[in-house]
Amino acid sequence: MAEVSPEVRARVQASFDRQGLMAHLGARLSRIEPGVVHITLPARPEVTQQHGYFHAGATSAIADTAGGFAGFTVFPEDSTVLTVEYKMNLLAPAIGDHLEAVGTVLKPGRTLTICRLEVFAVRDGQSKLVAAGQQTLIRVDARPEPPAG
Amino acid sequence: MAEVSPEVRARVQASFDRQGLMAHLGARLSRIEPGVVHITLPARPEVTQQHGYFHAGATSAIADTAGGFAGFTVFPEDSTVLTVEYKMNLLAPAIGDHLEAVGTVLKPGRTLTICRLEVFAVRDGQSKLVAAGQQTLIRVDARPEPPAG
Amino acid sequence: MAEVSPEVRARVQASFDRQGLMAHLGARLSRIEPGVVHITLPARPEVTQQHGYFHAGATSAIADTAGGFAGFTVFPEDSTVLTVEYKMNLLAPAIGDHLEAVGTVLKPGRTLTICRLEVFAVRDGQSKLVAAGQQTLIRVDARPEPPAG
Amino acid sequence: MAEVSPEVRARVQASFDRQGLMAHLGARLSRIEPGVVHITLPARPEVTQQHGYFHAGATSAIADTAGGFAGFTVFPEDSTVLTVEYKMNLLAPAIGDHLEAVGTVLKPGRTLTICRLEVFAVRDGQSKLVAAGQQTLIRVDARPEPPAG
Repeated sequence: MAEVSPEVRARVQASFDRQGLMAHLGARLSRIEPGVVHITLPARPEVTQQHGYFHAGATSAIADTAGGFAGFTVFPEDSTVLTVEYKMNLLAPAIGDHLEAVGTVLKPGRTLTICRLEVFAVRDGQSKLVAAGQQTLIRVDARPEPPAG
Repeated sequence: MAEVSPEVRARVQASFDRQGLMAHLGARLSRIEPGVVHITLPARPEVTQQHGYFHAGATSAIADTAGGFAGFTVFPEDSTVLTVEYKMNLLAPAIGDHLEAVGTVLKPGRTLTICRLEVFAVRDGQSKLVAAGQQTLIRVDARPEPPAG
Repeated sequence: MAEVSPEVRARVQASFDRQGLMAHLGARLSRIEPGVVHITLPARPEVTQQHGYFHAGATSAIADTAGGFAGFTVFPEDSTVLTVEYKMNLLAPAIGDHLEAVGTVLKPGRTLTICRLEVFAVRDGQSKLVAAGQQTLIRVDARPEPPAG
Repeated sequence: MAEVSPEVRARVQASFDRQGLMAHLGARLSRIEPGVVHITLPARPEVTQQHGYFHAGATSAIADTAGGFAGFTVFPEDSTVLTVEYKMNLLAPAIGDHLEAVGTVLKPGRTLTICRLEVFAVRDGQSKLVAAGQQTLIRVDARPEPPAG
């Protein structure tokens, strides 16, 4: 797997750090590769339901964000990315020590880019697919701004 | 528009109150009708991006939850509801004093229920549609538990 | 409801007539308004399943096409439209004398346009919603070509 | 890759043969494995647009059907399957000698099963991904009927 340049890595991290919601949820970037970004979300009462499961809203938020940044890694420096739409299936209760969302570019494009979204729940080192989806991103040029989330 | 019974209203509110994520985001139930639920989310740095827009993750979280509770209003007392999947288009930047998510049952069913999801951004009393989607819910019987979100 | 100009109507009809699949299925344009297009598909063994229901593939094909042409009615003359993606829920068995698909522009845009898709099964004059979805279209300029379907 | 039993293969083929639409389009089953079904659709004017591309309606119809039968291979003998919903991104113009749709079970379940949908356009032996999606199926017991498509 190729590595992203230090510039791209810094650009992705800086964008992520400005997203108030990610900090508020306690999420962090855990992997940045060309066309692939992982986001990790530890279990906390603030992101779970009454049963100790992760809330689908939190699951989807990190999945959507991972996909957006995956697109961001393959775009030119002076462009940003917006989510056009996404679809997410919740496959199993999201129970675990943390969630790991994986966004993967399936088809990059000049205007539109399509990503695959996956979320795994990790418990005692065991990983289980709990959500899967697909996302359409649009590249927006010019303004030096991070992904819109 | 018919009104929900005090029992249903109390059941919906109690479920909502147990959702850690909704409290953490600062969201509240603002309308409960048979097959229709509204959730309001005031603008705060914790749910916005660097531009003062609401994060798509927050927008989707309240939309998904509004749809889940809309289904909940039409289900029998001893059942709960889980989101099977949803699809959301982000139509415009979500800028405003608050967001209002509206979940509406489009087709109730014994096992599966389909909802329409809409999110409006309200600014200076003006309301604008900023997200639209569709959701599939599954009814799960027996366990006395609130919606899974 | 405003009417489309004779030019737009002719442009939509000409495009539709060049779509081999629509003719092969036996579908026809039944309504053209600004931002709204209806397509009617009579019941025939060639579009149904073994139970006399319409095949989901036929249901979706006319829904997607109705949405594409709905977008086409609001675009400039020298542009065409491609489906980026769509999502469709099949709500009930599609049984009837004919199906009527309705594509409605929900949010027009310079690059992307979002449509609502609905399909009704009509039997003995009674109409029932059997499918509902949402579609993203992209406008492509220049080439004098009809919607891509 | 395990093989399906002759009984399952016969059951899938018999169901497919009763789908009027698949015969009308000229589609055929080209691979049946546990949890994976391929459907091939040769290029013909009846399934293409004016540019010689496959119509998105035909692309989606074979994708949805491939997913439905993929689910069918993992279900008990006395059950059938209905498409609850699906989402499809059209990634590139579908040009080629034939299309090959691949439905793959991503997550089997007692009630709901989730499939990945892919469609490849094959030209001069070269295969290109032209559509990708995700599908939710519901298993229906008892009636000895083939997939609904």
